[in-house]
Amino acid sequence: MKTLSDHVSALVPQMQTWRRDLHQFAESGWLEFRTATLVAEELHRLGYPLKLGREVIDADARMGLPSDAVLAAQEARALEQGALPQWLSHFSGGFCGIVATLETGRPGPVMGFRVDMDALDLNESSAADHLPQREGFASCNAGMMHACGHDGHTTIGLGLARVLMAMKDQLSGTIKLIFQPAEEGVRGAKAMVAAGVVDDVDLFTAIHLGTGVPAGEIVCGSDSFLATTKLDVQFTGVGAHAGGRPEEGRNALLAAAQATLALHNLPQHSGGVARVNVGVLQAGTGRNVVADTALMKVETRGVSNQVNDDIYQQALRVIAGAAAMYGVESEVKLMGGARSCTPSQPWVAFIHQQAEALGLFNSVVDTKQQAAGSEDATYMLERVQQRGGQASYVIFGCELAAGHHNAKFDFDEAIMATAVQTLATLALNQAQFGSQQ
Amino acid sequence: MKTLSDHVSALVPQMQTWRRDLHQFAESGWLEFRTATLVAEELHRLGYPLKLGREVIDADARMGLPSDAVLAAQEARALEQGALPQWLSHFSGGFCGIVATLETGRPGPVMGFRVDMDALDLNESSAADHLPQREGFASCNAGMMHACGHDGHTTIGLGLARVLMAMKDQLSGTIKLIFQPAEEGVRGAKAMVAAGVVDDVDLFTAIHLGTGVPAGEIVCGSDSFLATTKLDVQFTGVGAHAGGRPEEGRNALLAAAQATLALHNLPQHSGGVARVNVGVLQAGTGRNVVADTALMKVETRGVSNQVNDDIYQQALRVIAGAAAMYGVESEVKLMGGARSCTPSQPWVAFIHQQAEALGLFNSVVDTKQQAAGSEDATYMLERVQQRGGQASYVIFGCELAAGHHNAKFDFDEAIMATAVQTLATLALNQAQFGSQQ
Amino acid sequence: MKTLSDHVSALVPQMQTWRRDLHQFAESGWLEFRTATLVAEELHRLGYPLKLGREVIDADARMGLPSDAVLAAQEARALEQGALPQWLSHFSGGFCGIVATLETGRPGPVMGFRVDMDALDLNESSAADHLPQREGFASCNAGMMHACGHDGHTTIGLGLARVLMAMKDQLSGTIKLIFQPAEEGVRGAKAMVAAGVVDDVDLFTAIHLGTGVPAGEIVCGSDSFLATTKLDVQFTGVGAHAGGRPEEGRNALLAAAQATLALHNLPQHSGGVARVNVGVLQAGTGRNVVADTALMKVETRGVSNQVNDDIYQQALRVIAGAAAMYGVESEVKLMGGARSCTPSQPWVAFIHQQAEALGLFNSVVDTKQQAAGSEDATYMLERVQQRGGQASYVIFGCELAAGHHNAKFDFDEAIMATAVQTLATLALNQAQFGSQQ
Amino acid sequence: MKTLSDHVSALVPQMQTWRRDLHQFAESGWLEFRTATLVAEELHRLGYPLKLGREVIDADARMGLPSDAVLAAQEARALEQGALPQWLSHFSGGFCGIVATLETGRPGPVMGFRVDMDALDLNESSAADHLPQREGFASCNAGMMHACGHDGHTTIGLGLARVLMAMKDQLSGTIKLIFQPAEEGVRGAKAMVAAGVVDDVDLFTAIHLGTGVPAGEIVCGSDSFLATTKLDVQFTGVGAHAGGRPEEGRNALLAAAQATLALHNLPQHSGGVARVNVGVLQAGTGRNVVADTALMKVETRGVSNQVNDDIYQQALRVIAGAAAMYGVESEVKLMGGARSCTPSQPWVAFIHQQAEALGLFNSVVDTKQQAAGSEDATYMLERVQQRGGQASYVIFGCELAAGHHNAKFDFDEAIMATAVQTLATLALNQAQFGSQQ
Repeated sequence: MKTLSDHVSALVPQMQTWRRDLHQFAESGWLEFRTATLVAEELHRLGYPLKLGREVIDADARMGLPSDAVLAAQEARALEQGALPQWLSHFSGGFCGIVATLETGRPGPVMGFRVDMDALDLNESSAADHLPQREGFASCNAGMMHACGHDGHTTIGLGLARVLMAMKDQLSGTIKLIFQPAEEGVRGAKAMVAAGVVDDVDLFTAIHLGTGVPAGEIVCGSDSFLATTKLDVQFTGVGAHAGGRPEEGRNALLAAAQATLALHNLPQHSGGVARVNVGVLQAGTGRNVVADTALMKVETRGVSNQVNDDIYQQALRVIAGAAAMYGVESEVKLMGGARSCTPSQPWVAFIHQQAEALGLFNSVVDTKQQAAGSEDATYMLERVQQRGGQASYVIFGCELAAGHHNAKFDFDEAIMATAVQTLATLALNQAQFGSQQ
Repeated sequence: MKTLSDHVSALVPQMQTWRRDLHQFAESGWLEFRTATLVAEELHRLGYPLKLGREVIDADARMGLPSDAVLAAQEARALEQGALPQWLSHFSGGFCGIVATLETGRPGPVMGFRVDMDALDLNESSAADHLPQREGFASCNAGMMHACGHDGHTTIGLGLARVLMAMKDQLSGTIKLIFQPAEEGVRGAKAMVAAGVVDDVDLFTAIHLGTGVPAGEIVCGSDSFLATTKLDVQFTGVGAHAGGRPEEGRNALLAAAQATLALHNLPQHSGGVARVNVGVLQAGTGRNVVADTALMKVETRGVSNQVNDDIYQQALRVIAGAAAMYGVESEVKLMGGARSCTPSQPWVAFIHQQAEALGLFNSVVDTKQQAAGSEDATYMLERVQQRGGQASYVIFGCELAAGHHNAKFDFDEAIMATAVQTLATLALNQAQFGSQQ
Repeated sequence: MKTLSDHVSALVPQMQTWRRDLHQFAESGWLEFRTATLVAEELHRLGYPLKLGREVIDADARMGLPSDAVLAAQEARALEQGALPQWLSHFSGGFCGIVATLETGRPGPVMGFRVDMDALDLNESSAADHLPQREGFASCNAGMMHACGHDGHTTIGLGLARVLMAMKDQLSGTIKLIFQPAEEGVRGAKAMVAAGVVDDVDLFTAIHLGTGVPAGEIVCGSDSFLATTKLDVQFTGVGAHAGGRPEEGRNALLAAAQATLALHNLPQHSGGVARVNVGVLQAGTGRNVVADTALMKVETRGVSNQVNDDIYQQALRVIAGAAAMYGVESEVKLMGGARSCTPSQPWVAFIHQQAEALGLFNSVVDTKQQAAGSEDATYMLERVQQRGGQASYVIFGCELAAGHHNAKFDFDEAIMATAVQTLATLALNQAQFGSQQ
Repeated sequence: MKTLSDHVSALVPQMQTWRRDLHQFAESGWLEFRTATLVAEELHRLGYPLKLGREVIDADARMGLPSDAVLAAQEARALEQGALPQWLSHFSGGFCGIVATLETGRPGPVMGFRVDMDALDLNESSAADHLPQREGFASCNAGMMHACGHDGHTTIGLGLARVLMAMKDQLSGTIKLIFQPAEEGVRGAKAMVAAGVVDDVDLFTAIHLGTGVPAGEIVCGSDSFLATTKLDVQFTGVGAHAGGRPEEGRNALLAAAQATLALHNLPQHSGGVARVNVGVLQAGTGRNVVADTALMKVETRGVSNQVNDDIYQQALRVIAGAAAMYGVESEVKLMGGARSCTPSQPWVAFIHQQAEALGLFNSVVDTKQQAAGSEDATYMLERVQQRGGQASYVIFGCELAAGHHNAKFDFDEAIMATAVQTLATLALNQAQFGSQQ
């Protein structure tokens, strides 16, 4: 009988093909039309029943959605690039999510694995020493690049799907494979949670590759995510000739300047790390006109949900107050969000034990002190834990050509097989977890 | 028969005595207890029926009143310094206003003359070259000094009362002599207007000496007053240990800092001169405590009531908005106010003509470009004009030892006789005005 | 012999043709390539000796110049639209100025007339009821529209040139016709003054049509211009990940917010009207990045050069201080400027007298209270007056379809003939001025 | 032979007497004149050689010193209250520090123990239920109260001195007892370090009682101190009449408002907790005057010296920049400072072991998560560690009547004996530490 290792080895060339295709046709958040149809087709072909689009994504809980015009144009672009028409209607309008379910027919818990599919809004390097360029699979979509490894994640998800189906007879319980859109900007996970996709999951695992973890190391329960809220603030005032009738204006730019200073006054909190950033401010139309519009792109962060929520609530107060000061209107639009997380210790310990037993890693650790970033799989961990399940976030260390979000980002593709083997092992040995508890 | 000139000449020594006594016992706004009792006694002795205290001052319309404790202590101080007990009860609690009325019994309009009685919150110079010091009548009250000439104004009012009573038979109509408290800080006139003291006045004249007008000149209709509003703003937040629990604080100091910057953003107005000043800011109790209190002393000004009101309304908006930004409470207390004014041209012209005919001045002008100050007799001018009367503000130029509000301020006492003679002339010749119109 | 009136009447159809052509091919400031070549050709054809481009424009004194790329692209565009190659090289690179000189050979002063040629950065209305649209001469250049009447001014300059040449024998002294680029944003006049074009002018007249002056009225010496300075401020800091390494950033956006509030605190000045506006603020590149750049488009204004200079000097101090607060660099670029002005009373009186005598106007006034705008012909008035000459700014009232700077702006073309006749009259009767003085 | 326990038991009544005397004559920082003379007398009487005043306090390194007038008045007050004239001259002028040294004559390390002597600027509660009031030893000095337990600390120092001298024959090495002034406001320790008092110390221990640690518990190596810098910032501008000549002013209040907002923008740092507080702002003299002065009381804090120094350096930049924005002068005066600290693990472990062996505590812990405060003994720990020594900060839990810095603060005096016994044990068993290492 073929071992897991045999199955994974056989998959390596296919995984490279998948990954490079996804990399070449990189699609930014909520626009993963081609990607999603290919993923759906493969999962369907393997025999997985699927839930698609609006079945797994709550429309109203989506954050930071592109405009209708962009959605339509990108869907057309995807079609031209080989998106499969038979699946596309499910995803149309910004619903590129897929959940594949494997019912083993044997009793056991529901395991969930989550991967993300979106690229970054970035132009890929055209330098000759950039491997995707050299090998001919650099992104052909301007302003879209897989510079965070989600092409690898999606491939790992597909590889895992193939291996698990092949070894179905050795599994018990239920397995859900979750393919999420729009992780960049932490925009997509919340809508999948709202649609209930993890409501029945008992053992949940989300993954990432790289992120500064060295090759050969696995982090079994990463907990260094900051809770965050992303918001766009629009101030709308009244224009006026600044020389002739200044008192007739209601100055949105001044309101934004006041709000900016006050927002940056917020992050002192005994609960731990707190952050605010007004990263972008665009205001006014002409030098001699009292500015009637101002847009601020803002984010809050906190070491815990509590801290982030505190800061966010104060931010709303600041924004409303600043608008009132200058008699302008303010509108706050939620553009993204993520939670802090505390992986479930028993599940982390099980992953740790299994990873050590696998012999693929020269370092197995539970956590790692990392620079403060955010990740929206945390919404899924939170929901699973709220409902009594176990959840963790696993990082597979690997060698990177350049840091994440860099135009020359690239990763060692070997990590994909390692990841598939590790995750499949969790599924195959899952019964041991129950007995340990 | 004694001429007006004879009467005035005879009064000169008495006026010096009065003025120096008032100067020595200088009393700040709303605290003119001794002054008011002496004025009442003199007017009563002359035979004027009087309206006193609450009869001529609307309690609720008073602005910038000292605390009850200060009022009580100063009333006691006044008693010790010779305030007349028989009159004091009328003025107790901050009601030091007097209106004396002379009914001639002959038909004619009601003429009103207004003088003010209060000193400034200032320590008088103890320099040997300061005449009041040298001559022994410098203020004996710490932090109170007649550095604006109101001692002279009160004396002119008394002198005018004596002369008019002496020449009663040559007068017609009614004459009201109005002695006002608390002009400094523009706090008192509004309350006299609210009590109706000028509601029946047909021909109104308020006066000032000095103010940069050279000796020998009279300004018959000064119009360079800015409308103004004085406000105290109290922000009340929540204290907290700034190192240990910063997020538990609600920072009143930061609210005040934001409000201050926004208030100073207001004065650009096509209607003309607009001003805002946060002159005083006192906030916080300790270096390591989130400040829970902040007090701002603010004023707005405008070339017109409209401009001042615009700025003031925007200031209220700014204050409320800044408080909202930081989740603190704000309270605005009206501390003073004055109006812009446009003297009535016919009455100005009559004063001009009479002043020229008198031969006491080497320059008679209608208006004079002056630095932008404020004066609350403007409330009286406004009310008189609203009801169809004529009103003006007259300035008697005179030599000053130092500028107004200076610790070495002093004026040439000769101007008092000139002023009495001029004002009495207006009363004596008033019938000519009616015939000219 | 043909009278002036005859000459002007004959010109009317030509002036409409010129104006509509200029209107259709509207060219924004410093980009008047086609316009300038057509003006040069016409003046040359009439026999005027010309000074062109760098001869009349000091390169270093130009303000608010577009980028080299824009200059080159627009020059190419102009060529395609019929700019005359034989003249274009003079204007290449942003030097679209022309001075035509008529030496009469008879003794007399040097008279200067100045018109401006540039359009606004505005899209013209495509509404059916907009006459230029209906008649087919709306601007064919996107973002460029003659919405201030400079097409009319240029036409008046050409008409005047033709009439004066035709009546040359009746003229004495010297006449200079000055065609200026880039009046919008008050960018061009200073460079012509720096090149010395008005250094020999004894009697100077600049003109405008409309500006709220009613049809039938002429303002002979408009003095309601505010001195102004236009500046672009660039703050350059250091970017950093706002969540991960905030302390490594140097925040240009915060520096700009502080500078904005402080700049708007400046305009309280006893010298009269003062203004500051930060009309545009563009800062930052991403929500989660400490902003490393911020651009502010700022203007200061003052009722006098003194007031504007005071405010401007304080603005420089504010900008440098704000940069220092946040450890960022600041760069200030002068983008435009204009002076306050006081037309020379004798010359205004002469224009007044001539205008009345003409019988073309039902109202002839010296000045008119107007909303506070700016105009850079003031640099020319100032220089002429500094050197002992007489100068004025004349406004020809006319009916407008919509206000200046409005997408539906249009003016009654009849005013062009009136203006030519008036200006030519000043030239023809100039000798009377000398004799009056 | 009397045991340590016997010695301590015998001392209990004396310690209560000392503590209550010190409590009654509470003296604030740099003003511990009476306290210091009594301490010196007792130590001298016991036979300790002493270093006093300028020998142990570097004049220039003192921070937050009261004015000369206050120093002189308080020295006179101390004399009246029983300060011993024979010692007073050493402490005159703000030098109330004492170091007593016990040379055992036997080889061994130098051990240092530090206690502080100053009271807080606080009025003690006069409530009947406040024990010091009821028992008649509440502070007789207005605005000075031992509300932090330093009276207990001084008493422990004296008790320790007496016990160690009594058991001198069982000790080896050298023991230094350090009595420090002005710990409140973190002002005094730096000056003792600068005078070299811990330069020869090998094993250093500072102590505190209470601070939220429950009775029965000892914290052997408290590490939750934030590094901090206290600064007073004075802005000096130019006054002007806000209505009449606003442009002649240089507004110190506006500079302070801008600086305040920018200072509160600083504390986002990846190095950990960072804090800024502008706790007090006092600006301006009158409502209608451009404010020419502003005083800010500021503190920065950081989880590490590095973080605090970063914030402090940025604060200096902010202050200078804000002054430059408004053309005012700024002066920064250092008012206090403390360091973060990491107790030496071996020494903490030894204290832990000894404390457990003593049997006096029901809980012995190394550290305790506490709200972020500051303590200037950290300067001593830092210096000792820099020179290769071991250092720790020990907290003796005890019951409090009310929290520290509260007007009803009081502590259970029994803790003093416990502390003396514990510290003496460290000295007596010190040889075991060397052998463990």
